[in-house]
Parts: sequence; structure tokens; C-alpha cells
Amino acid sequence: MILFAALAHVARSAAGAETVPTGSFEAEYRPATERILGAALANDRAWHRLSELCDGIGNRLSGSKNLERAVVWARNAMQEDGLDSVWLQPVRVPHWVRGRERATMVEPGPQELSILGLGRSVGTRKGGITAPVVAVESFDGLRALPADQVKGRIVLYNVPFTRYSETVRYRSLGARRAAQRGAVAVLVRSVGPVSLRTPHTGAMSAYTDSFPAIPGAAVAIEDAEMIQRLLTRGERVRVKLEMEADSLPWAPSHNVIGELRGREHPEEVVVIGGHLDSWDVGQGAQDDGGGCVISMEALRLLKELGLRPRRTIRCVLWTNEENGTAGAKAYANAYGKLDLHVAAIESDGGVERVLGFDVQVNQLGKDSANVATTSIAVERARAIAPLLAGIGAGKIEKGGGGADIEPLMRLGVPGLAHRTTMEHYFDWHHTQADMMDKVDPVELRKNVAAMAIMAYVLAEMPGTLR
Amino acid sequence: MILFAALAHVARSAAGAETVPTGSFEAEYRPATERILGAALANDRAWHRLSELCDGIGNRLSGSKNLERAVVWARNAMQEDGLDSVWLQPVRVPHWVRGRERATMVEPGPQELSILGLGRSVGTRKGGITAPVVAVESFDGLRALPADQVKGRIVLYNVPFTRYSETVRYRSLGARRAAQRGAVAVLVRSVGPVSLRTPHTGAMSAYTDSFPAIPGAAVAIEDAEMIQRLLTRGERVRVKLEMEADSLPWAPSHNVIGELRGREHPEEVVVIGGHLDSWDVGQGAQDDGGGCVISMEALRLLKELGLRPRRTIRCVLWTNEENGTAGAKAYANAYGKLDLHVAAIESDGGVERVLGFDVQVNQLGKDSANVATTSIAVERARAIAPLLAGIGAGKIEKGGGGADIEPLMRLGVPGLAHRTTMEHYFDWHHTQADMMDKVDPVELRKNVAAMAIMAYVLAEMPGTLR
Repeated sequence: MILFAALAHVARSAAGAETVPTGSFEAEYRPATERILGAALANDRAWHRLSELCDGIGNRLSGSKNLERAVVWARNAMQEDGLDSVWLQPVRVPHWVRGRERATMVEPGPQELSILGLGRSVGTRKGGITAPVVAVESFDGLRALPADQVKGRIVLYNVPFTRYSETVRYRSLGARRAAQRGAVAVLVRSVGPVSLRTPHTGAMSAYTDSFPAIPGAAVAIEDAEMIQRLLTRGERVRVKLEMEADSLPWAPSHNVIGELRGREHPEEVVVIGGHLDSWDVGQGAQDDGGGCVISMEALRLLKELGLRPRRTIRCVLWTNEENGTAGAKAYANAYGKLDLHVAAIESDGGVERVLGFDVQVNQLGKDSANVATTSIAVERARAIAPLLAGIGAGKIEKGGGGADIEPLMRLGVPGLAHRTTMEHYFDWHHTQADMMDKVDPVELRKNVAAMAIMAYVLAEMPGTLR
Repeated sequence: MILFAALAHVARSAAGAETVPTGSFEAEYRPATERILGAALANDRAWHRLSELCDGIGNRLSGSKNLERAVVWARNAMQEDGLDSVWLQPVRVPHWVRGRERATMVEPGPQELSILGLGRSVGTRKGGITAPVVAVESFDGLRALPADQVKGRIVLYNVPFTRYSETVRYRSLGARRAAQRGAVAVLVRSVGPVSLRTPHTGAMSAYTDSFPAIPGAAVAIEDAEMIQRLLTRGERVRVKLEMEADSLPWAPSHNVIGELRGREHPEEVVVIGGHLDSWDVGQGAQDDGGGCVISMEALRLLKELGLRPRRTIRCVLWTNEENGTAGAKAYANAYGKLDLHVAAIESDGGVERVLGFDVQVNQLGKDSANVATTSIAVERARAIAPLLAGIGAGKIEKGGGGADIEPLMRLGVPGLAHRTTMEHYFDWHHTQADMMDKVDPVELRKNVAAMAIMAYVLAEMPGTLR
């Protein structure tokens, strides 16, 4: 045995690569992994599909014709792929429309501001709102202002980007908190680290009945800084804000669902997916056309390779993630208890260099982690990591989740978030710049491979992450 | 003498800094240099002035009210500075207006394109031009196309950025050459290295009578790439282009001129300056509000410090550099032979980290260098380099010039171009993103210091660069 081990070591060194002990978890799935990698990295189907979606259709806000064109396109694509079942789940979604919008600094000036109204915002009255601007750098700063310096004014939240989770609060809650103090509108410095006069839209939290619904728009970093410089110099700054934004009656939409039925336990389901809707600017390429295409292509590859795992893998393209998550709720309501979901993987972190997957199991009914079951799930998922390591995707950490799988996770389903470096994700996020050229075709293929391998093994391995 | 030299060496080493031999060129100007550096680096006048110009007035296209507001502002500022003379030189300038403009990819699509019409372009007829798009990557590519693939089409020049001088040809000449082959409009991929859906405007060359005047617009890199992807995939792409662009009758404008008269040879003049006009997007902060403010502040500092050199230093803020150089021509016509210009320094390379100055002496009547006199001028200017080295501005190379000093250089005046790293200059150039936040206040001060030192020594030293 000692001699054998020594020889094995020599052989390993000679080959310049690690060998896999026969009978190990890794060895079990290595042949399938190699076939997936080979197929994923050799073809450009995902790239062409992303171009069909982004270049051929464009952005896809809930309630838009484009989103329903994308629904039909995705269904047809999955049908072409020969999945076992492909269907649409009807979902009613919020229908916010931007309309025309414009902001002008009228004093000093005039200078046009680069803005994007925030999703859910009300519009201004006809003729717009013209008011002096007061700038704050935090909610504390807002609270500290005397009443007469907020009332009747437009509040500018000039908060430099730190992390998304930290900075996005001003986009979400800024209008409500400013309205509470008597402001007539808010401008929110765009939630992003860099700018070429680039406003970032995104959703506001819903208005409450306690305070007036006032309009909110994102301004580019440059414009926020300009207003700040002028105010710091003691100048009076007045802005005219005109927004036609409106919330129309909810509109029909659909989750697009396709699956490869499990050969042993078709009632057990591994969900993979992204959200098909996007904001109404750019192409929604990184957010989240990429996640959709990665999931579609992962499933197509398994089908093409004849890799039908023990359990069902279901690709879900959710509708309305950006302003309502109606698709996610509808999916969990309809299927969350009907089918036994053993895991749900969401890809909504862009298509940069793939790193791996974060894993979390929630406390029942909650959005917070169950520490004990999460630890077990992470440990089990880590057994899959060596299969992903060849493309650098073997990082498995605590912390999975995603807006679309949250309702499933509340039911106890282990949630995985597909992770990429996100080096530039927030440069493009919710902007006109989220176009397909930001996606690297090689990274796209690697992301497809990682998703296919993870989904395959979770659906094939004897146990589950729970 | 040998002993003395040895001791001098020891002293130098001990001090950890170079000493300046008494009586040298450098020693002569070292005290003034130190005063200039100290004053330039300790105050924020240039920064505040740039904010007054950029934030208070905004962009300044020839013919606009903003440009004439800037003219008045600059004259008042120079008068406040207590210069010996401040005056306006009337100049008639082209008055191109953008009007509304819009480009939509109508097939496949619709998707809005991110465009900026090119300066001097004609507009489209009412209702716009709708035509299929053909893409080329070079003028050779255009020539190689069969006639029926150009005639009646919109030509997209999808030329990736290399260097400005190389790539800008497609913006300048693209419309003329496409019209020659029967195209109805051109879209030019923006001349810049990066993009967040950022179109770069800029001037087209004047139309000729030989071919129809067809409209031209810059498209963002993202849009050019999108159209290219669709065409590569075999899709038919049609774009609707609507531009209200128009050339109105020439308008009154002004060069703003201020000077500090020389104490010995007031008739000998060192010109420093930048151009006060900008494109009609962003704030013209790097191009060329910065160059204007650097020149104004350099002269103000010399005045404040009581450094009145042998010769006159004249700050000229030219009008209409961007689309006509009428200001540069008018200045040279009026003053080029009247005054003895010993040197002209243009600052039009942004306000990034200062590197130094490039120097060139032209052949009489030409835009090309006189090799022999340029070499002499560079050598003489290099004597000034040690005075600039403390702020990293001591790089003196062949190759000066600039659109505003070109007419003077044709008269034989040695031309200097103020040089910065230009690391990001073409990211912002002629875009909505050329805003004041792109200017680093510390670099601005260093640039002021470099300009003041160079101008002072050129105006004070016994000889000239010729």
C-alpha cells in the first residue's frame, strides 16, 4: 500500500495534475463535469441568446410590451431546447411608466441635470415643481436641519457610494423621510461608484399614507457634486423638476418555466434562474439578462448531453423582480409547497468572472439564516467545490439569497446565490450603460458551466443540502 | 578649486537636496519660482473661478448666450485682478445649434440609441431619415463596399479608439466620404476609449459642394457595438435619425484679453491662454475651462506677487476653438504682426497631472516644424525645466502647438503646449461628463504654478526661444 501510494504520487507529479481518488464524491461526478465544461466552453449559444434578448428586444420593464415579447422569446427558446415541460405562469405585475422627465437647475443657470426618475415615484404636477435645493449627506443630516430649511424644498441626498446595501437606503427611503419633514421632492445621488454623467434608476419603497407622496429622481454624481459646490459657496440653487411618471393599473405578465424531469425523484426540484424583467434603460444585460441566459443554457446543455439527474431541474425566469417581485411571490405561492424544492439557485449578480456560490438556509418564515442548518448546507455544498475549481468557481460561502428565491427560502428551501467578482457591476447597474458589450463571452461560458455543474450535482447527489 | 568642488559635493549630499550654483540660469529665477509655487499651491482662487465658470454659467458653445456671459465674467475677473489692460476683441463666430435630436433603431427594436449630433452637421428633414444601416471599420472598408450596399443607407463607422489623432478622422471626414458613395447619413462610433453609454460630440469638417450635405451624429460605443452584433448575426438593422441641427447666421463673440505690461520691453509679448468656448454638453471643465482658469490665475499671481517681468505677458481666452477657430484667426490677424510675440503657450490638454511643455517653431506660413529652430527652442526651454521639476512639470519635448496658437505659429512665433498626463482626458472629451468634478484641485494648483513659472521666465530671461 505504501509502495502504491508512492507510485501514485509519482504518477500525479508526472501528469502535472491532481488525480481523484476512485469512489470519492468528486470522482463520482467528474465525468459529467468534464462533459459539461467541454460543452459549455466550446459553444456560443448563451452569447447569441443574450444578443437576441438584449439587442433584439431590449430592456423589459414590468408592464411593457418588451417584457412580454421576452416572455414569448424565452418560452420558444426553451421549447426549441427540447425540455420536458415548458410553461408560462400568469402573474399580474405593477405597471409603472416613466414618461418624459427633465430637471433643470434654473438658479444659477440654467443647466440641465442628468436624471432618471425612480421606480414607483409619482410624477410632478404639470409645469413641474420649482423649488430651492437643500443638500444633506445622511438621514442624520436631514434630521438635523431646521424645519424652514426643508419645508417646501427639494432635498438632495448627496451620499457618496460605499457599498450598495448601505447607500441604496437613500434611494429607497429618501422620499418618505424628506416628505415627513415637508420637502416637495427629492434628488438622490446615484447609487454607484463611478459616473460619466450616468444616473442610476431603481425602486423607491412604497409610499405610506402618513406623509405626502413626493417625486424622487436619481441624479448623476456630477450633478450632485455641482449642486453641492454651489451650496457650499453660498449660492442659492433652485431646480425645476418635471416628471410624467405614473403608476397604471397592474398588467398581465408571466414567469417562464421549463424543466428537465428527474429520472428517480421528479417531484424533487432544484430551481435555477434569474429575472427576465429589467429597468427601462439600457438592455438589462448584466441585470439580469445574463442570469436568465446562464440558467437557460445550463439546462439546455444537460439536456443535450443526456445528463438527466435523479431530481428535476427547473429553470424559472421570474417577472417583476425590479419593482415588486410579484413573479417571485407568485412562483412560491403556486409551487413552493406543491413541489419539494431541494435547492434554489438565483443568478442575479452579473456575468463577470465567476467565483462560486453562497449558500443559506433560512429560519422558517424568515429572511434570516438558520445558523445550524446553513453550516450543514455550506459544508455539503463544499463537497461540490472541487468540481468547480477548474474554472475558478469553487468558492462556497455562507450568505446565499436573492430577491426571487427569498419567498422559497422562507419556506425552508436552501438558497444559493451565484457569485461573480462584481468588479464593475455597480458601474452599470440600472443605467443606460447596462448593455451587452459589458458581458465578456468567455466569462459568460464559464458562468454557464458553473451553474450547470452545481445544478446537476445538487439534482444528482444522493442527499440534499438540508 | 578642486577642494572647493569636493566640499560642495559633501554639502549637497548632507542636505539631501541639490544646491544651485550661484550665477546659473536656474539660480537667477529660483527666488521668483519659490514665491510662485508657494502662492499657487496655497490658494484656491483657480478652483473657485472654475466653479464660477462651470457651475455658475455652464457650457459655452459659440453663438450661445452662455459664451457671452462667460466673456463678461472673464473680463470682470481680469479687471478685478488689477491687470494693466483688459479688453475684448470682437470676433464673429459660427452659430451652429443642435436642436432636438433622437435616433431610434426601428428594426429590430425599437431601441433608443444614445447619440450626439456632430457640430456643423445639417439636420434631417422633418420626420427624420429612416434607412438601413451598413457598418464599416475603416475608410478602406467603405471603399470596398459594393455601391448598392451604401446608396440610400446610413453608414456606421464602427472604429475602435486608438489615438485621438487617428480615430478623429472618421468624425471629421466620415460624412463627406459616405455622401460621396450615396449614403444618406452617418453614425460615428464615439471617439473615446471608454463609455457608460456616452456619446462624444465634436466638429465635422465643412461640407464641400461636390457631394450632398448629409447629417452626422456620434453614437455611444455601446450602440455601435449593438448594431455591429446584429449585422454580424445577419439581422437587418434600420435606424430613424431625427436632428434639428442648423447653422444660423454668424454671431458676435469676443476674445477676452488681459495683460501685465513688461517693464523693459512692453512691445514684446508672451501669450498664455486657453479657449473660453466649449461644446454644448457638460461644462467644458477639462476642455477648456481649466486652461482658461490656469492662464488667468497664472497672470493674477504674478501681478499679486509684484513679479513684473521684462516683457509683457498677455492672457488670451480665445473664442470659437471648437467649431471654427475664428477667435484664433482674429487674434493673429489683429495682433500677430502688430506686437512682437516671443512665445505663445496654449493650455488645452486638460487639468490632469502636469508634465511640462512641448515646444515647436514652425516653418514660416506652415503648420509643420522647422527642425533646426525647434531644436534650439527646445534646448533653451530646457534651461527652465529645473525650475519646474519640483512639481514634476519639467518635461520639455518637441511638439508644441494648439488650435488657438496655430495662426501665430505660422507667423514664426515659438509655440508651447502645456502638457498633462491626459490619462482620462478622452474619457470625458466633448461629453456630458466633462464636468468640474473631473478636475483635481491639487493638480489644478500645480498646473497654475507651472504656467506662471514658464510664462514668467520666458518673459524675464534675456534671450528668447528663437
